[in-house]
Amino acid sequence: MKLLEDRIREEGVVKEGNVLKVDMFLNHQMDVFLFRQMAKEWKKLFADAGVNKILTIEASGIGIACIAAEEFGCKVVFAKKTQGKNLDGELYTTQITSFTKGRVFDVIVEKKFLGPEDRVLIIDDFLANGCALEGLIRIVRESGAELVGCGIAIEKGFQAGGAKIRSMGVHLESLAIIESMTPDGGIVFRE
Amino acid sequence: MKLLEDRIREEGVVKEGNVLKVDMFLNHQMDVFLFRQMAKEWKKLFADAGVNKILTIEASGIGIACIAAEEFGCKVVFAKKTQGKNLDGELYTTQITSFTKGRVFDVIVEKKFLGPEDRVLIIDDFLANGCALEGLIRIVRESGAELVGCGIAIEKGFQAGGAKIRSMGVHLESLAIIESMTPDGGIVFRE
Repeated sequence: MKLLEDRIREEGVVKEGNVLKVDMFLNHQMDVFLFRQMAKEWKKLFADAGVNKILTIEASGIGIACIAAEEFGCKVVFAKKTQGKNLDGELYTTQITSFTKGRVFDVIVEKKFLGPEDRVLIIDDFLANGCALEGLIRIVRESGAELVGCGIAIEKGFQAGGAKIRSMGVHLESLAIIESMTPDGGIVFRE
Repeated sequence: MKLLEDRIREEGVVKEGNVLKVDMFLNHQMDVFLFRQMAKEWKKLFADAGVNKILTIEASGIGIACIAAEEFGCKVVFAKKTQGKNLDGELYTTQITSFTKGRVFDVIVEKKFLGPEDRVLIIDDFLANGCALEGLIRIVRESGAELVGCGIAIEKGFQAGGAKIRSMGVHLESLAIIESMTPDGGIVFRE
């Protein structure tokens, strides 16, 4: 998606350790005009798929997921990374390792929010090694819901996540796939 | 706001310890149709205030803030509760105590996202003792930005936060204010 690639080129900052900061528009400051264009793109890519629920994970997936949910006319459920005292129902649980935070999280979704009647689109901001996405896919499958696909904003194509998820037969659509990037600012996108 | 009060009555669950669960539509599953109506209400309440930035706090404030930001035609910044390795700029920092999580968080916003040119509306899902909101207000004031006001979805009117924030002269608009609630499900709203 050219609009997103342009923003990554203009405002993204490549840091040591394969970190891409896009906090100007995606995951600290959030440009909801851009989010709306991304949401429309996902709607095109998953048209006629009968999506009736969007699943994401806190925190930075929530904004794009909510805007996307308006396009699909459905609700959002966000997976939570820790167990607060407000969570007391039956839970789907799994563990994921966060690339940026460098630690393992327990991830939970209350069972009442996902079930066999749901056709789920997973939305998230980043796909790198795929741990978070695999965790969300495990939760969808455990729930008996149908996984329609995954919509990602930025995929780091040089890490293993995208290939792994696609090899599982999942319909994965990343709006920008980075082939390579270097700290001097050079970013090459996959055609 | 009647639509929100109706949803709280229909789907809210009052738990021991003054906990109100509204996870069916607000902060685990998210009803973006409701969010859009809430956003339009805030837009009416803060019309002509020149809002050019919305500040919220992760995680459950992000969805309503993003939808509201489209109404105001501005960007969202969300305050983060922990310091990941992607945060390395100059930071505004403060501490807040979470009512639901029962612990103290460091809350941060990168300085480049808030400054004297900003007219800030703070959006959050809950107001109880006011700790989170006071923390966000401290960050806005430290940044030199103008605080236009605060838009809250649900205020627990029987806790001290609302009175405290209003006594500071802040324009605070809560879409539903709960006067009292009991575990048998009785919820009384402020007129």
